[in-house]
Amino acid sequence: MARARLRDLGIKLGRLPTGPLNAITDVAGVEVGHSTLIRDTPAVVRTGVTMIWPHRDIFSDYCFAGFHSFNGNGEMTGTTWLAEQGLLSAPIGITCTHCVGVVRDAICSYAAGKGIKQAFHLPVVAETHDGWLSDAETFPVTEAMAHEALERAKAGPVAEGSVGGGTGMICHEFKGGIGTSSRVAAEAGERFTVGVLVQANYGARDLLRVDGVPVGREITHDIVPGHRAPFNADGSIIVILATDAPLLPIQCQRLARRATTGLAWAGGIGANGSGDIFLAFSTGNRVKNNAPHADVRMLGAERMTLLFRAAAEATEEAIINALTAAETMTGFQGRTLHALPLDRLQQVMAKYRPAPS
Amino acid sequence: MARARLRDLGIKLGRLPTGPLNAITDVAGVEVGHSTLIRDTPAVVRTGVTMIWPHRDIFSDYCFAGFHSFNGNGEMTGTTWLAEQGLLSAPIGITCTHCVGVVRDAICSYAAGKGIKQAFHLPVVAETHDGWLSDAETFPVTEAMAHEALERAKAGPVAEGSVGGGTGMICHEFKGGIGTSSRVAAEAGERFTVGVLVQANYGARDLLRVDGVPVGREITHDIVPGHRAPFNADGSIIVILATDAPLLPIQCQRLARRATTGLAWAGGIGANGSGDIFLAFSTGNRVKNNAPHADVRMLGAERMTLLFRAAAEATEEAIINALTAAETMTGFQGRTLHALPLDRLQQVMAKYRPAPS
Amino acid sequence: MARARLRDLGIKLGRLPTGPLNAITDVAGVEVGHSTLIRDTPAVVRTGVTMIWPHRDIFSDYCFAGFHSFNGNGEMTGTTWLAEQGLLSAPIGITCTHCVGVVRDAICSYAAGKGIKQAFHLPVVAETHDGWLSDAETFPVTEAMAHEALERAKAGPVAEGSVGGGTGMICHEFKGGIGTSSRVAAEAGERFTVGVLVQANYGARDLLRVDGVPVGREITHDIVPGHRAPFNADGSIIVILATDAPLLPIQCQRLARRATTGLAWAGGIGANGSGDIFLAFSTGNRVKNNAPHADVRMLGAERMTLLFRAAAEATEEAIINALTAAETMTGFQGRTLHALPLDRLQQVMAKYRPAPS
Amino acid sequence: MARARLRDLGIKLGRLPTGPLNAITDVAGVEVGHSTLIRDTPAVVRTGVTMIWPHRDIFSDYCFAGFHSFNGNGEMTGTTWLAEQGLLSAPIGITCTHCVGVVRDAICSYAAGKGIKQAFHLPVVAETHDGWLSDAETFPVTEAMAHEALERAKAGPVAEGSVGGGTGMICHEFKGGIGTSSRVAAEAGERFTVGVLVQANYGARDLLRVDGVPVGREITHDIVPGHRAPFNADGSIIVILATDAPLLPIQCQRLARRATTGLAWAGGIGANGSGDIFLAFSTGNRVKNNAPHADVRMLGAERMTLLFRAAAEATEEAIINALTAAETMTGFQGRTLHALPLDRLQQVMAKYRPAPS
Repeated sequence: MARARLRDLGIKLGRLPTGPLNAITDVAGVEVGHSTLIRDTPAVVRTGVTMIWPHRDIFSDYCFAGFHSFNGNGEMTGTTWLAEQGLLSAPIGITCTHCVGVVRDAICSYAAGKGIKQAFHLPVVAETHDGWLSDAETFPVTEAMAHEALERAKAGPVAEGSVGGGTGMICHEFKGGIGTSSRVAAEAGERFTVGVLVQANYGARDLLRVDGVPVGREITHDIVPGHRAPFNADGSIIVILATDAPLLPIQCQRLARRATTGLAWAGGIGANGSGDIFLAFSTGNRVKNNAPHADVRMLGAERMTLLFRAAAEATEEAIINALTAAETMTGFQGRTLHALPLDRLQQVMAKYRPAPS
Repeated sequence: MARARLRDLGIKLGRLPTGPLNAITDVAGVEVGHSTLIRDTPAVVRTGVTMIWPHRDIFSDYCFAGFHSFNGNGEMTGTTWLAEQGLLSAPIGITCTHCVGVVRDAICSYAAGKGIKQAFHLPVVAETHDGWLSDAETFPVTEAMAHEALERAKAGPVAEGSVGGGTGMICHEFKGGIGTSSRVAAEAGERFTVGVLVQANYGARDLLRVDGVPVGREITHDIVPGHRAPFNADGSIIVILATDAPLLPIQCQRLARRATTGLAWAGGIGANGSGDIFLAFSTGNRVKNNAPHADVRMLGAERMTLLFRAAAEATEEAIINALTAAETMTGFQGRTLHALPLDRLQQVMAKYRPAPS
Repeated sequence: MARARLRDLGIKLGRLPTGPLNAITDVAGVEVGHSTLIRDTPAVVRTGVTMIWPHRDIFSDYCFAGFHSFNGNGEMTGTTWLAEQGLLSAPIGITCTHCVGVVRDAICSYAAGKGIKQAFHLPVVAETHDGWLSDAETFPVTEAMAHEALERAKAGPVAEGSVGGGTGMICHEFKGGIGTSSRVAAEAGERFTVGVLVQANYGARDLLRVDGVPVGREITHDIVPGHRAPFNADGSIIVILATDAPLLPIQCQRLARRATTGLAWAGGIGANGSGDIFLAFSTGNRVKNNAPHADVRMLGAERMTLLFRAAAEATEEAIINALTAAETMTGFQGRTLHALPLDRLQQVMAKYRPAPS
Repeated sequence: MARARLRDLGIKLGRLPTGPLNAITDVAGVEVGHSTLIRDTPAVVRTGVTMIWPHRDIFSDYCFAGFHSFNGNGEMTGTTWLAEQGLLSAPIGITCTHCVGVVRDAICSYAAGKGIKQAFHLPVVAETHDGWLSDAETFPVTEAMAHEALERAKAGPVAEGSVGGGTGMICHEFKGGIGTSSRVAAEAGERFTVGVLVQANYGARDLLRVDGVPVGREITHDIVPGHRAPFNADGSIIVILATDAPLLPIQCQRLARRATTGLAWAGGIGANGSGDIFLAFSTGNRVKNNAPHADVRMLGAERMTLLFRAAAEATEEAIINALTAAETMTGFQGRTLHALPLDRLQQVMAKYRPAPS
């Protein structure tokens, strides 16, 4: 069966409408690029880089942003600056654990190569570990791959599953990777979009739920032969949330924290070994580098609730989209990781969701 | 239909076994006491105080503890000290918003009255707001009530629903209040208990779920006449987690943060107006006040995962227990808040949970 | 010798100019009120309450604010809300440790009494402990005193030393209390004021410095007979920083953190038992309660440096002003705490500060 | 005049005794290594890497650690893990801003090369920016340099000034770099050492103080011709604190925060552009990777005060040692940065410090 997005399977999550693409790129200006590396010699490698541009002027027109670490057993660079200033000043990278450094420096060198006049950069690069399917100790990601992902980035639909940073990932003991989704929050005559992109590499099988249905209890390892829990089912997930709502840095922190809700709905519990780290940025305000002051808009506190629901729903669906998009993969040491079987998913959903009476 | 605990209705949540009482008091030494105030003159008051003793020597034998604010639109005193030292040195109070202060000072005066020799106290007292059912601006809680709750505290079963601090509370637009639950985490030949007590006063109806089943979508306001969303469905929830696992302060912080998972499973999204603040303490280590050093035990990091699951499951079930225990209440300005109808709950659960095949 | 402010003694601190009052009230709109309780029967009490209004409309027109806990062995209520929303929505109280609660609730009851239409309040009330000079276990502060301090608040010069919340305080083992100072930060054609008010109750004698001069090493206990270290020289300090610069919440957090610099200059090291907790608010933006959005101004990041220097200088001078203003006091159990001898201070400063050559 | 350590100039800071080396290596097991790169072709480079081993078994026997960001305009990787677990599991690197990534990954590759069996690493690497003296956009630091610094590390005296990561640094507008110092805290029959190493690259001239003496006001740019403020005098400082006192993670956080005091004493105000980030680790407890539990010791809270003083004093002196050790350097674009003139320093100290009477 060909891979699909969750909604293509007739399964809807949540109450709020999606944006036209049901992707992080529904937030105007956001662009996503992947660089994927799949090779068997000299080492078996399944890895890559995903880059997210909040907008193309990000090196000079900063966005407000904030992060939350639900479980910090992972790396996200740039967080002390986010905590201090709440400003995002470079594109965001996601890659494998051992390659965070090269990707982080590569964003600096990309800016230098483009003649960006700035003393230094403090980019945000996050990771999840792909060492079960990929020979991570070969440190396969290069500066060129990071630059490629930056250059390839574009608006429009986002490739999901085993691409970019998500190439070698595992989620609820199925093949995981990149997933995306979005929601539209319309209230008081205004419409804001919340878009989410995840690199999903976490979770125990039996905790997986789709719209509350205990999919992971039904599609056990026995049902799909060869499915085995790699490692200790800990893993990690990086969630990037974008919105065009005009938020202040402290509000971006709040929004980032709400990825926890969507992750919990999908079955994440912040297991010990998991690096569950979330970043939210707002394109609704721009702050010029070095401006003496900036006039900015702040969404009223009461109106955050709808954004929080949007963030939770889009995070949940982005995770499931990673699962429905990713294909079965064989990698390092001949290991095979099976994809979530879509027909089984549909059967389980039907079993637990009564027909409207 | 008489009120009940969730399991009495034949509904189970989660995978881990409960402790014998399925209550926070399954953690040895923990005692809970309520002082409840329901009166109609001179003002209509539905309020109270709930006190939790980690153990009876807490004024001199401190526990490690940590807190997490998922959404900080509420009050929990004592948090700067928790963040600094990670030590809990007094019983914990929960009450209504406008009475946090009197209860906080009352813990100090209780200690003074008992001849506790200590320069000062920094007790933890948290709150949720009961102003829809209770005339909160009469500031009804007294020092005597706080002392009464401290004195009445005992081990054994814990009264749930509209008692103590939970008396006037609202949860998912049903009558809310106090709920409790516990889980046993057994691994590597050791058994630890995680017990949870909540004061549940949050949530939108349509988000309520029980074991993933969308109960809140099914039991709408139309079905139960007179159910109306009071306020803006924001509310708040305080979660107190106790464990006998030997945790360090930083590990208590981690455990506290996991209440988010259980809250999300029940349908909490950390709405803007909600004070969703969690405290976890460990009775597995004791630190004598003023000791020059202490020898303490730390649970291995890998073993935290099972505790995290226990915390999530017990939080979810404690919330639902608050709903199934609380009875319909009429209060301030003649307002009535309906209880979750238990027969309807059972019907909905049956509808969404296929019979074992 | 009559008590004085530091500058009246011919001693200047720092480089930036002060505001006209050299007080927190140099920030337009800020008002300060004290209620002082000194009595010898039925118990010996030396205590009080100090209230700070950011402006008189604070219950409906919120200010951005942020806090920092340098050493959290103390209490400041309202911090979870500050961390979440960054909004200050009530006047700020400072009092003694055991009376934080009554003062906190009293701000709520004050608002209720004034007919403020708001579901609840989460006021900020902080404390330092006066138990050496005052019989703290009598819980002497009343709701009426808190209301009195609110009512008495006014613009103009601020009473310093042993007044209000500072009445029974100890600083560097001299008599401490309330002190204030301000600085003007002028840059790029704009002038902003940073005003500071401290309740100073911390510190070891030998660490006290004034403009770098080791005053505490020179004015030892031997020189002033009867000076003895009460308790363990731990104590606490609360620092409230006000500015009219247009700051966002995250910038207020930054400003609050800079009180650490001024405290360190005066000789504070965040000793274990000290509650060194700082709050900064900005009157440069106002956010209407319940507004759907707000247009606000943000000072450019580069321009924060001058504010940081202003905050450090004003904090240092406010502490020294508390010392030079406070008079020798005899209190609980007949204990006497000596004031910093001003003539000795001048002699020491002259000894260490060479005449301009 | 040859460069020297501060105490060689007859100038003492603080009250507590130093360890035998007056260096971070006074903490048993700690080793420091530098790799320094000074070359003029193809680009003018003045940079390097400094590595600190808490002890040589750090990849399997973890230390407790904690960090504090006084001003987060900088990078320190590994902080989400430190915040979550409080465990340090790799040597610590310090380098230039644009090379944080390569050094971070190099620690991972070093471990892989040594056959360390671990799924992944989350090393701590921090930076300050050397772009005024070094052509930073050539990204000059290599994996080999990082490995070299790791291999060269040793106990004993630590090279200071323009070495390793400190090679191209600027401090208070003098030549800065690496500095180190230590203090012994003896109390209740026990002796603990606090050792500090800084990479000092921050500060405005006029704020520089040595033991309270306003050295920076006296040694102005006019006095030493050619001294000019590079950039905006913002810069950054990384402070690494080591102790053999048995601290828990939360206590390491407290100790790290106390570097603020020493920094303030030397004249740091956490200027906007400064990345003032501090890490403290304790060798007093070791936690085996993957152990089911660990028995650890916790220093009593009351005894932290002396450690805090030690941390403040050692941080202050380490900064001044960086200044007295670093030599005048000419670098990128022919710029020259002058060293602190030691004879002038002695003259100023004599002027402000009266002879004992």
